[in-house]
Amino acid sequence: MKTSFIYNIPTKVYFGDMLQYLGREIKQYGHHILLIYDGDYIKSNGLYQYVIEELDANHLEWIEFRKVRPNPRHTDVNEAIQLCRTHHMDAILAIGGGSVIDSAKVIAACCAYDGDCWDIVSGKVDFDHTLPVIAISTISATGSEMDNAAVITHETYHEKNVLAKTSMYPVVTFLNPALTYTVSPYQTACGVADILAHVLEEYFTPIQGLYMIDTIMEGLMRTIFKYGPIAFKYPTDYEARANIMWASSWAINGFVSFDRPHAWSMHPLGHQLSAYYDMTHGLSLAVIMPRWLRHIQDEKSLPLFRSLGVHVLMLDESLSDLEMADEVIKAIEDLLYHQLELKSNLTELHISSEHFEDMANKLCAEHGYHDGFRPLYKDDILSIYQQCL
Amino acid sequence: MKTSFIYNIPTKVYFGDMLQYLGREIKQYGHHILLIYDGDYIKSNGLYQYVIEELDANHLEWIEFRKVRPNPRHTDVNEAIQLCRTHHMDAILAIGGGSVIDSAKVIAACCAYDGDCWDIVSGKVDFDHTLPVIAISTISATGSEMDNAAVITHETYHEKNVLAKTSMYPVVTFLNPALTYTVSPYQTACGVADILAHVLEEYFTPIQGLYMIDTIMEGLMRTIFKYGPIAFKYPTDYEARANIMWASSWAINGFVSFDRPHAWSMHPLGHQLSAYYDMTHGLSLAVIMPRWLRHIQDEKSLPLFRSLGVHVLMLDESLSDLEMADEVIKAIEDLLYHQLELKSNLTELHISSEHFEDMANKLCAEHGYHDGFRPLYKDDILSIYQQCL
Repeated sequence: MKTSFIYNIPTKVYFGDMLQYLGREIKQYGHHILLIYDGDYIKSNGLYQYVIEELDANHLEWIEFRKVRPNPRHTDVNEAIQLCRTHHMDAILAIGGGSVIDSAKVIAACCAYDGDCWDIVSGKVDFDHTLPVIAISTISATGSEMDNAAVITHETYHEKNVLAKTSMYPVVTFLNPALTYTVSPYQTACGVADILAHVLEEYFTPIQGLYMIDTIMEGLMRTIFKYGPIAFKYPTDYEARANIMWASSWAINGFVSFDRPHAWSMHPLGHQLSAYYDMTHGLSLAVIMPRWLRHIQDEKSLPLFRSLGVHVLMLDESLSDLEMADEVIKAIEDLLYHQLELKSNLTELHISSEHFEDMANKLCAEHGYHDGFRPLYKDDILSIYQQCL
Repeated sequence: MKTSFIYNIPTKVYFGDMLQYLGREIKQYGHHILLIYDGDYIKSNGLYQYVIEELDANHLEWIEFRKVRPNPRHTDVNEAIQLCRTHHMDAILAIGGGSVIDSAKVIAACCAYDGDCWDIVSGKVDFDHTLPVIAISTISATGSEMDNAAVITHETYHEKNVLAKTSMYPVVTFLNPALTYTVSPYQTACGVADILAHVLEEYFTPIQGLYMIDTIMEGLMRTIFKYGPIAFKYPTDYEARANIMWASSWAINGFVSFDRPHAWSMHPLGHQLSAYYDMTHGLSLAVIMPRWLRHIQDEKSLPLFRSLGVHVLMLDESLSDLEMADEVIKAIEDLLYHQLELKSNLTELHISSEHFEDMANKLCAEHGYHDGFRPLYKDDILSIYQQCL
């Protein structure tokens, strides 16, 4: 197949201690700013104060919105949109992690629409105009700081939908690894699991890609395996935080996926767990990842396991295909459950099989199966969830 | 050291058979286009005709400039600038390789300046306004299609200068690997040498970088080692051409260098050869590369040789540091001189030591040495050149 794609990642990134550029960047986009964040930690670490002084010094006017929850809800987004419309906002400044930046993107995308944002998030209504989003990332995980997608939850429907469009890339993003020093070991671990999952979703792809991009993904995974545990154990290790932070952005900004139109395998399975149990996104992926990898071993995936084993984990090339796949999965389990100390099953998380049937039905609702690296039928999905217990 | 940098690569890339988007992209930037190219090969392969039809279909007006030589001359650029100024051009469409795209960038950067472009290229005069450049790349080599730099030669002074600024990134670039099918094996080989040199210049860096970026560079080199010889031997192998083409752009677009302010080691040595002997850029680098690598073996470079050997060439980890460096250099020689069949020394190219003294003096003129991975004093430079004979 002749690979073709459009590459278009316009986000400008200030990496390091660079917030002195914040005001002059925002000013390019207007003077009325919606400032969105989700907690007091940005006040206790001085970030909030610094940002406010930058805004003041640049004569920018802002109003605040801070009702953002993990797995952000469409009702909160609707509220922020009203605020934006009433006050004629020019741009949105998001300070936080994936939940805050995702919320900002959906607010920006839906601001010109006079209705429920779920109409747009669910794909019923299209959108043209998007407000510019400037992001200050405070955690390495979702990659939302440099990608064009946002995930929003509808509480009543137990649905988690993805909205994505080129115009949704943040225009400017500030990544200061030192701002992630205070991220807890648990949240750090969940973030690392999320980043690894992003790479694996594209690595195990049904559509042939470019060898060059495979090597990039292997490099990102080497980085995650090397620095994930260091960031977990030594929260103020700049080198580890910096490597994880930049890997987080490049795992999902579009470079390694180059618009191959394929569905992801693990994320939707994880989204169901989050939607039913409000489970941390990265943790849900950490639980599913090894089970899904065991499930997909076949002649199409074994060469990928081999390349991953040799180039990421430096495993012995003389291993058989099945041994190699097994060693790769064991190494991932070791990373997630031992080095990063994440819970390894749903039982420990007090989750039973109660909703598995509903979740599997939802995943199969559209096509009769869940598409991804390979189709997962209802029985496949139930089996993967069962193995997570 | 706490890594910090600004990442800002705004070029939009259409990769594959995508020229149907050309007209609508150009139209965004204006209606009067300077079309710049350098040879009849774009007429014989149908590309020229296709582009003209696209321009016509989109009601764009253009004038042509085709006086571009390898190692492009500032006098030709001055001529094109006059044309641009007289006809009030809105944008420049460059079809070709590095020489054409570099020329286009300098024309774009100097168009508002009413004087010799060499004033700007030599750094005597600054510039603000840059015309947008749209590029159609026809060869994988310099990476000019996605970077912010241009190299221009002053014939009389025997000088080759680099002009670089963020505003010089092409706004849109079309990369169709199939357009490189007709690139000769020799030019393909020179291009591969150039791409490898770009990565090595950043890999052997005096300033500590990010492990993640090292892994990316190792991935790019794996790609070059794997697909360079295939593209050389099987010119119409899409997969090989595609991998080399995308690697070419990413080797030098700024991603792996993230504005570390260090001077390059090999390129300036090669530029002197080109300036004095009008030698093909990639060939000059191919001759210098192994000699320079032998010259820089020390406690700072040996760990880099080791990582390159293990992760790019899959060499045996049990080799000693010096053995590893030696094997790496031998592998590079094998790639360049055997697999890609490039000439391995200057004598074969009928170049004697006549100008070495002048060239070394030029390289040391500014600081008393040539800076790079480590300072090269006049004796170092003469020794490297001598070994190239």
